[in-house]
This record gives sequence, C-alpha cells and structure tokens, in this order.
Amino acid sequence: MSAILPHDIRQAHARIRDHVRRTPVLSSSRLSAMAGAELFFKCENFQTTGAFKARGATNAVLMLTDDEARRGVATHSSGNHAAALAWAARRRGIAATVVMPRTASPVKIAAVESYGGRILFCEPNHKAREEAADRVVRETGATLVHPYNDPRVIAGQGTVALELFEDVQGLDLVVCPVGGGGLLAGTSVIVRSQPTPVRVFAGEPEGAADASLSLTSGIRQPVEHPSSIADGLLAYIGDLTFPIIKENVEAIATVSDQEIIAAVRRLFGVMKIAVEPSGAVAYAAVAGGKLPVAGKRVGIILSGGNLDLERVLG
Amino acid sequence: MSAILPHDIRQAHARIRDHVRRTPVLSSSRLSAMAGAELFFKCENFQTTGAFKARGATNAVLMLTDDEARRGVATHSSGNHAAALAWAARRRGIAATVVMPRTASPVKIAAVESYGGRILFCEPNHKAREEAADRVVRETGATLVHPYNDPRVIAGQGTVALELFEDVQGLDLVVCPVGGGGLLAGTSVIVRSQPTPVRVFAGEPEGAADASLSLTSGIRQPVEHPSSIADGLLAYIGDLTFPIIKENVEAIATVSDQEIIAAVRRLFGVMKIAVEPSGAVAYAAVAGGKLPVAGKRVGIILSGGNLDLERVLG
Repeated sequence: MSAILPHDIRQAHARIRDHVRRTPVLSSSRLSAMAGAELFFKCENFQTTGAFKARGATNAVLMLTDDEARRGVATHSSGNHAAALAWAARRRGIAATVVMPRTASPVKIAAVESYGGRILFCEPNHKAREEAADRVVRETGATLVHPYNDPRVIAGQGTVALELFEDVQGLDLVVCPVGGGGLLAGTSVIVRSQPTPVRVFAGEPEGAADASLSLTSGIRQPVEHPSSIADGLLAYIGDLTFPIIKENVEAIATVSDQEIIAAVRRLFGVMKIAVEPSGAVAYAAVAGGKLPVAGKRVGIILSGGNLDLERVLG
Repeated sequence: MSAILPHDIRQAHARIRDHVRRTPVLSSSRLSAMAGAELFFKCENFQTTGAFKARGATNAVLMLTDDEARRGVATHSSGNHAAALAWAARRRGIAATVVMPRTASPVKIAAVESYGGRILFCEPNHKAREEAADRVVRETGATLVHPYNDPRVIAGQGTVALELFEDVQGLDLVVCPVGGGGLLAGTSVIVRSQPTPVRVFAGEPEGAADASLSLTSGIRQPVEHPSSIADGLLAYIGDLTFPIIKENVEAIATVSDQEIIAAVRRLFGVMKIAVEPSGAVAYAAVAGGKLPVAGKRVGIILSGGNLDLERVLG
C-alpha cells in the first residue's frame, strides 16, 4: 500500500487551495490533431512561482507547528522548489534557506532572491546538495523540506491531478514528467483512485533516465552524471517516491533534448504559452509517438514555465 | 453618431461565437503591483489563428450571400488579418486571396499558407497593397474584406470588448492597441455603451503614430514611412474607423520599440504567455506609466500572439 493516500492529497488541497492558483486546463485542436488524440494540458506553468512546486512547498510550510515554523525551513533544489519554498515561507513570515547548484538557471536564482530566500551555492551534484542542506538544518534548527522525498510535498503535488480530474471528464490516460518523482508519485495515487481505470505514464530526459531504468529493473538505479536541458529533472528518484511509482505507473518514456526543445517551441508557437524544458517533457513523450495515445483522451501535465529564452534558442 | 452601433457588435457576437474562441481574461498580481493598478488581460493571443483578427474576418465571411461567397474573398494585410481571412474562408469552403508585403513576418506567411490562402506579394507600402488587392477584386469578382476599414470587420473586432465586460465587473478604463483602428473603433463603441462611465485609451508605436497625431489634430494624418517592431500596427488609420475613434477615445499614448520589447519580455517572463509586439503595445503604454491607471481596474487587450522568437531577441 502507498505511503500516500488519496485522502492525504485531498486534505492537502483543502489546505493550500486559497494560497496557490487553480491553473487552467487548455487544449489546442491543432496539437490534438497532430497527436491523433484529444490532449488536455494542465498548465502549471501558470502556477504561482511559475511551477507546480508551489503546491508541495505550501503544503509542507502550512503543516509546520508554530515552534517549527519559528526556526524556518531549508532545502536543496535546482530552482523551482527553491523558489516555491522561499515564496511559501515568506507568506507564513518565516525564513527559508536554499542550497542551489552554482549552475542553476539565472531565472531561477533571481526568483529565489525576489521571494527573499537565502541562497547557498554548492557544486552541481547530488551529494554536495544534500550535505550542504543537512549542515543548514544542523546549524539553524530549520525543518528540511525535501524537494520530492517528503510525504507533505508529494501530497501537495498530487493536487495537480486532483484538479485535472475535476475539470476534465473521461480521461483515458495521464502523462507526467519525472525527476525525483514527487509530482509523478502524487499524480499516480490520484489517477489510480479514479472510479474507472485510467493509465498513468511519465516522460523523462534520456540524459537523466534513472526513473526509467529503475522502473524497468524494479530496483532504484542512479545515473552517474545526469545531464539534460531539462534542468529540473536531473534529480535521483527518491526512496519514498519510487515504491509509489513502481506500484502505479505503467511505463516511463525517455525523450532526447532535441525532442524536448521541439516540444517547447511547439507549445510556444501553437499554444502561445511559455513552458520550460522540464515542464514540456510529458508533451515531448506524446509528440514523439512514444506512448499509446491514439484516439484517447490524454491529460498532460505542463509542470513549469520558468524558461530562459536565450537558452532554448541558443 | 457612430457608423457602428453596440447592436451591430452584439449581432456579430451571436454570428461568430460558435466559430471563434472565447479567450480567457488573465491577471497577474506581480504585474498589477508593478503598475499600481488592477490589470485584467484579455488574451486574444490565444484566439484561433493567433489574433483577434479571426473575429472580424469570420463576421465578414459569414455575412456574404451565397452568390458573393462563390466568388471568394480578397484582402491586403501584413499578416494576421490575412491568416484570419484565409482561415475563415476555408471554414466556409471558399477561396481567399491575400496581398502581403514581401517583408511580412515568416510566421505570418506560413500561417496564411497553412490555411490554404493564395498569397500575392507586393512592395511594403500602403499604396502597393491597396492597388494589388483592387486588381484581384476586379479580376476575380472576389469581395474585398478590408483589414479594418469595413463595418463588418469593425463589428467583429468589437466582440473582444463585449466578452471583456461580461467577464470583468467594474472596469474603470480599457486600453487597446491601434493600427488601422478596427479593434479600437469596435472596442470604443462597446466601452462607451456601458451603463457607467468607462474611459478608453489606446497605445500606438512611436514610429507609426498616425492615429495619435490624427486624434490630437482632429484630422487624419498619415505618417510617411511608418516603421516599428510592431509590424501589425503600421497601417494608416481608416476614414471609417477614425470618426468613431475621435468620438470615443480619450487619448492615444505612443511607445518606443524598446518599450514594446520590454513589454513582450515581461508578459513572457512573468505571465508565461507569448504576445507579439503589436499585441503588447497596450500593455507597454500602461507599463510605461503613460496612462492614468493608478488604483484603477484596467482592461488591457493583448491582441495577438504570433511572435517570431528570434526577431524579439535579435
């Protein structure tokens, strides 16, 4: 049985709904025709702070006791979770310290600063990030809000799918991006709790395909030097998120950076919306013909919109 | 009295509403805070064909008799009206011939082609455009659907404001871009028909400020060599649109190309939406502090989203 229940996600939704944005579900007859399916895009690129991460971070911050809250929160993140936690912390009037890789996108660094978060830069690898965050927790007594391996965060991220099913009837399958697995785990719990069977798939960058490898082999498998233009999806699948994903998710399709960029450009050119590379990975998997969507009603999560224009064009 | 009545616009809405998209009104707490006003963006960048032009073109095409329809339609346009007319004609199963300046944006040329329109290229000046279109009309018997100086088109464009007032209560003022004046004329008729007083302003590129000059002097005044990154707003204010604008519009603020590009980038960076330079001119006027918006509820029309990424960044 999952560590996260649909009930936890519904409670999270009640807790955060007045704080975050209910994002629209958009569709495009042109993109649907190209995919040979009916596509419904859940636009978390329009979410406060520019990504779904505001949901999990807000849920975690609101669940702190007053005593915990007084000592602040800390995390490590390539950017969107960092910005979201800084934003959620400021709304509660508490301090947030975030450890970011020094290679993080300038847009994301600027966002954390704009929300008043304190930034500590570290080397761009998993170990350096976790160690630096642990040090902050030891020194300040802050509560660590992990970007994905945290039940409060997973429950918050699951609210995306909750709204998607409220707004669109009769979905046959749902496609979600996967990095550390917080969004996918929460999504999969909601998908599998629907009264009728709905299939759940994910998209993952080829250069950071640890979740795909892990799902195939059944055992968590790191990728040594993950690399992709989808900078939000380089994290290693969590030991809390993986069992949930393994139980619920049918398959994870991998996509190349070229396919991701093509998806970003098409969402921009046709739908007139900004979606960052990490946020376009689920659509890239559909557009690349890698999932059994033909003739189906397909929910696609566009997870974030913090796009560096120059980076995608360069 | 206006040549266009609110009643004409309501009839146009009833005629076109099943054909075009009801676009959303979006807001951003960050952009509102920056402007010191409550901003409501009517997102015609999400309209079918990527711009509000689908409304006027559809209204004109649907008003043709069967006999007229058989001989097709023709127009001249820098692009968005051309694409819209080709699209509307194809929906009715009739031919569309469009005269485009050979300097038109490649995105817009591709759009006309994708909707099956026949394109004739001409020199990029007003006289060459009108002459080429007149020739097509003489040779084919097609009905000319002028991009703005046509009551059917003006009535169609006015439906944007109709929806804006349905969706947002208590607006104090409305800001609209102006080129040839079709959208502004239709908008102004709806604004002035509201039960409570609402002010109507426009934004215009500095390099093509004929509408601003004309409104100030009270007499239509062409600008010799209009030039701006807002390629949809280079047209000369019409002899049909100008009297309506003169009667209803309080002032037209001019904005530099630099201010327009800053507006496009900010709408993209903060709101995650693609708005083309011409479509961002009304917001540029507000963001540039050129209109009396402080503390007010302000409706801003974002008129199109057919953005050449490279051109804005270059």
